[in-house]
Amino acid sequence: MNIARKLVALERQALDGWVKGNPDHDLATYDPAVTLFQTPFATRLDGLPAVRESYERYRGMPVCDGYEIVDPKVQASGDIAVLTFHFECRNGSDPSRYFATQVWQQKKEGWKVIHTHWSKVRTQ
Amino acid sequence: MNIARKLVALERQALDGWVKGNPDHDLATYDPAVTLFQTPFATRLDGLPAVRESYERYRGMPVCDGYEIVDPKVQASGDIAVLTFHFECRNGSDPSRYFATQVWQQKKEGWKVIHTHWSKVRTQ
Repeated sequence: MNIARKLVALERQALDGWVKGNPDHDLATYDPAVTLFQTPFATRLDGLPAVRESYERYRGMPVCDGYEIVDPKVQASGDIAVLTFHFECRNGSDPSRYFATQVWQQKKEGWKVIHTHWSKVRTQ
Repeated sequence: MNIARKLVALERQALDGWVKGNPDHDLATYDPAVTLFQTPFATRLDGLPAVRESYERYRGMPVCDGYEIVDPKVQASGDIAVLTFHFECRNGSDPSRYFATQVWQQKKEGWKVIHTHWSKVRTQ
């Protein structure tokens, strides 16, 4: 399996839980030293404990009725793979689109996310 | 000079031009295969020609009266360095803050940005 296919499969496992309000699969992909940029946080979150605490607010809150990972692309070098894609969230009459950057690193325990940056697509 | 200090210095050279409406220094930091996520673009821009064309709309348009790179952090492995920081743009009575992700790769011609993702900080 090439890297892009493998990492997209890992993303799907994480997002299948996330969109239904279960952050545990997403948290399991994160490296202990992960850094995160994401609305609604006012600053970068540094490290898994900070991310885990912040994600508790989402537990039990479904986000999307369904989703698509669109146009995934991997830029890889050494043990680092930068995965980028468009995330399309179906949510009744209010669909939304996000830019997603996931920087993965191959560790002895498998691929882990060391940096994640999601932002809502806004054309103005 | 450590990597973080070197990359922040390169960012400052690029941003000193950018905030005054000159994208050339910023474009000079980009790898030919750069990928970019940024408002107001509706999709990821792939490759330097697409980015260069899109940046022309900003030429001659000053963005900030001044700026700060706040809390820069580097996560490095092999020839890749993920630089993240908060970008604070002073603009009269309307300051703005951005999350900035810059993935740099050390090439034979020096450090180049292979992926860039900027998003406005929104706490709701």
